[in-house]
Amino acid sequence: MNVAVVGATGYGSGELVRILSRHPHVKIHSLVSSSRAGERLGTVFPHLAHLEHTLEEWNVDKLAKQVDVVFFAAPAGVSSEWLPPLAEEGVVAIDLAGDFRLEPEVYQQWYGQNPPPTAWLNQAQYGLSEWNAEAIAQADVIANPGCYPTAALLALLPLVQAGALEATPLVIDGKSGISGAGRGLKLGSLFGEVEGNVFSYKVGKHQHTPEMERILALWGKESHRVIFTPQIVPMSRGILVTGYGKLRQGWSEKDLRDCWKAAYEQAPFIRLLEEDRWPRTKEVRGSNFCDLQLHVDHRTGHVVLAAAIDNLVKGAAGQAVQNLNLRMGWPETAGLTMDPLFP
Amino acid sequence: MNVAVVGATGYGSGELVRILSRHPHVKIHSLVSSSRAGERLGTVFPHLAHLEHTLEEWNVDKLAKQVDVVFFAAPAGVSSEWLPPLAEEGVVAIDLAGDFRLEPEVYQQWYGQNPPPTAWLNQAQYGLSEWNAEAIAQADVIANPGCYPTAALLALLPLVQAGALEATPLVIDGKSGISGAGRGLKLGSLFGEVEGNVFSYKVGKHQHTPEMERILALWGKESHRVIFTPQIVPMSRGILVTGYGKLRQGWSEKDLRDCWKAAYEQAPFIRLLEEDRWPRTKEVRGSNFCDLQLHVDHRTGHVVLAAAIDNLVKGAAGQAVQNLNLRMGWPETAGLTMDPLFP
Amino acid sequence: MNVAVVGATGYGSGELVRILSRHPHVKIHSLVSSSRAGERLGTVFPHLAHLEHTLEEWNVDKLAKQVDVVFFAAPAGVSSEWLPPLAEEGVVAIDLAGDFRLEPEVYQQWYGQNPPPTAWLNQAQYGLSEWNAEAIAQADVIANPGCYPTAALLALLPLVQAGALEATPLVIDGKSGISGAGRGLKLGSLFGEVEGNVFSYKVGKHQHTPEMERILALWGKESHRVIFTPQIVPMSRGILVTGYGKLRQGWSEKDLRDCWKAAYEQAPFIRLLEEDRWPRTKEVRGSNFCDLQLHVDHRTGHVVLAAAIDNLVKGAAGQAVQNLNLRMGWPETAGLTMDPLFP
Amino acid sequence: MNVAVVGATGYGSGELVRILSRHPHVKIHSLVSSSRAGERLGTVFPHLAHLEHTLEEWNVDKLAKQVDVVFFAAPAGVSSEWLPPLAEEGVVAIDLAGDFRLEPEVYQQWYGQNPPPTAWLNQAQYGLSEWNAEAIAQADVIANPGCYPTAALLALLPLVQAGALEATPLVIDGKSGISGAGRGLKLGSLFGEVEGNVFSYKVGKHQHTPEMERILALWGKESHRVIFTPQIVPMSRGILVTGYGKLRQGWSEKDLRDCWKAAYEQAPFIRLLEEDRWPRTKEVRGSNFCDLQLHVDHRTGHVVLAAAIDNLVKGAAGQAVQNLNLRMGWPETAGLTMDPLFP
Repeated sequence: MNVAVVGATGYGSGELVRILSRHPHVKIHSLVSSSRAGERLGTVFPHLAHLEHTLEEWNVDKLAKQVDVVFFAAPAGVSSEWLPPLAEEGVVAIDLAGDFRLEPEVYQQWYGQNPPPTAWLNQAQYGLSEWNAEAIAQADVIANPGCYPTAALLALLPLVQAGALEATPLVIDGKSGISGAGRGLKLGSLFGEVEGNVFSYKVGKHQHTPEMERILALWGKESHRVIFTPQIVPMSRGILVTGYGKLRQGWSEKDLRDCWKAAYEQAPFIRLLEEDRWPRTKEVRGSNFCDLQLHVDHRTGHVVLAAAIDNLVKGAAGQAVQNLNLRMGWPETAGLTMDPLFP
Repeated sequence: MNVAVVGATGYGSGELVRILSRHPHVKIHSLVSSSRAGERLGTVFPHLAHLEHTLEEWNVDKLAKQVDVVFFAAPAGVSSEWLPPLAEEGVVAIDLAGDFRLEPEVYQQWYGQNPPPTAWLNQAQYGLSEWNAEAIAQADVIANPGCYPTAALLALLPLVQAGALEATPLVIDGKSGISGAGRGLKLGSLFGEVEGNVFSYKVGKHQHTPEMERILALWGKESHRVIFTPQIVPMSRGILVTGYGKLRQGWSEKDLRDCWKAAYEQAPFIRLLEEDRWPRTKEVRGSNFCDLQLHVDHRTGHVVLAAAIDNLVKGAAGQAVQNLNLRMGWPETAGLTMDPLFP
Repeated sequence: MNVAVVGATGYGSGELVRILSRHPHVKIHSLVSSSRAGERLGTVFPHLAHLEHTLEEWNVDKLAKQVDVVFFAAPAGVSSEWLPPLAEEGVVAIDLAGDFRLEPEVYQQWYGQNPPPTAWLNQAQYGLSEWNAEAIAQADVIANPGCYPTAALLALLPLVQAGALEATPLVIDGKSGISGAGRGLKLGSLFGEVEGNVFSYKVGKHQHTPEMERILALWGKESHRVIFTPQIVPMSRGILVTGYGKLRQGWSEKDLRDCWKAAYEQAPFIRLLEEDRWPRTKEVRGSNFCDLQLHVDHRTGHVVLAAAIDNLVKGAAGQAVQNLNLRMGWPETAGLTMDPLFP
Repeated sequence: MNVAVVGATGYGSGELVRILSRHPHVKIHSLVSSSRAGERLGTVFPHLAHLEHTLEEWNVDKLAKQVDVVFFAAPAGVSSEWLPPLAEEGVVAIDLAGDFRLEPEVYQQWYGQNPPPTAWLNQAQYGLSEWNAEAIAQADVIANPGCYPTAALLALLPLVQAGALEATPLVIDGKSGISGAGRGLKLGSLFGEVEGNVFSYKVGKHQHTPEMERILALWGKESHRVIFTPQIVPMSRGILVTGYGKLRQGWSEKDLRDCWKAAYEQAPFIRLLEEDRWPRTKEVRGSNFCDLQLHVDHRTGHVVLAAAIDNLVKGAAGQAVQNLNLRMGWPETAGLTMDPLFP
């Protein structure tokens, strides 16, 4: 099966190429980058210099004829424009940007950009693999989830769906490595600015907020406002999400654990940690795992949750390939068996 | 004025020596370390090898005769035993451990150790410099605050005192460099384990929880439960605390900012950042500053607060010296004018 | 094929398990750790908690009966004692420590320990895969090279063998991540001590010095003294070796590159970088690659070489598996196709 | 005394402001930045937001009238043009760039830029404080040394001057934090590219090479070629230089140490470490110290040297202030008493 990656110069694309090039059922046919077309992959990603690829111009006709699946790993706005013509031609599209994740007016409000055509937006399935496998298996457009929502929703959905949490606002405190900010040249991404530093950003304004709220309402069957504060921590990869919610009367820690167990019994990438062992981003680094833990604070009647993922793998490229597997009926773990890299 | 530092081999003590050795009104008379008595300071702290000190045994009689002030920078439990005999002799004691910060039964419960003698506990003043200057100026025993409570309380107290926050639990999500775990040999403090890693620890059990609650009730005049989750981030120094609380009806972001301004107009170490600029630990590194910012999230009626300090300076040694200054009637900034080290 | 790992709690062993557990022709039969026997692998290495293994006591009879290959990843001295009884029983042994790499008196001098029995020492083949494939294919004891020698020798051997370098001392300046120091509890391995720090250690005394000299003389056909200075840099993984040697009259940069090309044309893990692109440890992280570059400094008639490897992979576990592949006649890259993890 | 800093937005300038703002005899009168004139200092350097300064346009007339000393902390080429007019007016100029450090044709060759006017070049004194104090005390133009040369020359000069080293090429292997590359937006300075990475750059081409050679010949009284390879290591600050030279017959380790002792007996910023303790960049971080150590390798007859400095302090801003002190006849340590920040 021939696949293409569009927007092939960011950190997420590097991961897609790393994973796809070892995938047993896939051949990387094209890497598309309008800004660096003609350059060899190894110039952009020297760590992958042994893979012989050359970046290409965007050419919808060629792609439509020659590839079966296209991954869009470009900034928000690109897939709104470029994805529909390809999808028209029957190419399966997996979008790693936010364009197809939200209601159009919400997208416009939080992203400040025009939403994609409604017809295609309506086709799109939200690609949280563990929660939407059946629909993904049929979908022609898959909206791969954001990195923070992936971690937060995997932890929260089983509890919200079970009705364990009061319908008060949930606090989601995120900590991310800087690769989430991309490979673009920004002062705030320089080593000197990130090293030895922790700081919040986009407080009250991060576009992943409505994504979490939408899916909680849709699949959790209960509306929760989310107060989401992302932070940059001095590392390249990884997200830790700490979540706080008020428990409904009568729910015990064991009940909550049982919800998780029931939800993830068959999920190869979800690891429910032993009690007292809390998720660490380095223990999932480079892998598609999501590690989960929770604690009920009896003094306050709240649950404290933690979820760790590699933002570039389960939070982006890895889940995109997991969705490809679901879409194609391959084993869910095909091409995704790499273990975490530690230390 | 002659001072001594007891427990002189930890990271906090290194900072005490760094600061005190340049303090205009102070002479370091003794550095006490029972485990490494007889060694030169430069053996323990090579970065201070140019300072000529030798570590000494604990000798209460000698200290009582020769020094005016003793800083206790030893693990919890030591000052409970060693501080009272010195204080009896009229030596001013500043304790950087938790022994004198809590009600005895609460101390016992959260620290798992016997509390100090009640008589001396009752003498102790909580050394949050900006909030207790008058009492500190008279105190013979000063309980220097914990690192997380320093950051959290400086942000919260003006708002709680003004009655801006509903009496629901406050969420305090802390992010700390690993120096807070001390210089002891633990697997979890190895570079290979901390680098590229973020993780929660002591969830629901951290001993700084009751410290925050006590002071909020005492000085904020309103009881709040605190849900406190500390996290280790891969850096040596610095704490960022993100706080979440529900606003009472009618409070605006401007009102909250006015509370902060009123509280800290004269405070030389509190920097209220311009709107939209969020505290970064690296911008206070090595200094005694505490940087503050807040945001009112209208969607949820909550305030999100952030406070950044250097855990070893404003969160430990720096504030201890600030308290010494208050106690002695010196300028509050004496010996504390070092600017942050960036990058 | 059943394999065992002895000394299964260090960082190098973690890598062995990571690689072997995905190897197409291998089954991990036993993980031996006398200090932590009975514990689950996930307790020691939480990142591998999904692999179901329990650490076992050392039991030579059981191993001799049940496994085909044993990897020794224990501190120097262990394999000298434990390896021979297993080898007697026909088990193939791959030793990652230094015991079988040196002449006995040199080992004694640089390691300060008794050398292994001479009979078995004489059996051992030095496992620099690219340079000794034929002998490795027959060997029953394989002495896996040290991390620094792997990088240095891969760069130097083609040039020394060709007679390009004068027989003056070679300067080898090494830079290593801290994982090379192991997972033991040492002050110098704490995050606070390593972060933001670079320093030399074991200057003039590092045990990899005679290992480089021996192999240069043996396979390079010319004796060179090596002046080797290792440095710790603040990262977990990776080694960069910078080498300096005086060129013999008449040798050009192109000649040297041709030596490298001839030596490594068929070597799947050696990447000769384009001119002006210098090896970076992060571009080989987690992989079995060795990246090489050189420059002839016409002002001084010297060549400057650089080699980058992941010290835990090509410098330890990866090369050990590469040697297993050579020994078993499997494809050299079996189980070693993981690409570098970047960023 | 009024001073100005020209080029006030780089990391080195941030350090100049940090140091000068606490200097007992100095008032910062102007901070000049053509690119960001009109902005507040705190916008460029939030860590210094408490200092009330606004960046200004370059105005030679105003500066000439109002300030006594100007520090040039701009990229190479700027001071060649801007410094002479100010110096004409009697303003003392301290240049942190390379313009005034080399013979004109060598500057042209290595920097690829036109050298400054010869008249002023001839006035310039090389500001290696410990080696040129008398001339600096009279100089109107001080060429502050490069960061690598500062470390390398402080280690080498006493030995070269004593004739201890054979006149063969010296190997200088440098390791620097990324702040040496400035605060400009370059892919290679991003956190994701620097973290977990070590790599050489400008091999055989670094402009500090002729600077070392010139001063060794001038003050060491013996010509040595230098083979200099700089490396970036994943930290913000600090330089470690490892040097290798061949000893002349008859020189012992003790002789070399005696050379160092004689040279630096009165030098307040040079710390000769105890035997077996090797310089660590973190033990000088934020301070003006240079830590030195050496070892004679009897196997090869070479000396191995190491020098650690903070590249932004002793390697730039700190030494510039030290030179100011020498020029003004103030105590050499005025404004430079800050101890290293550890951990």
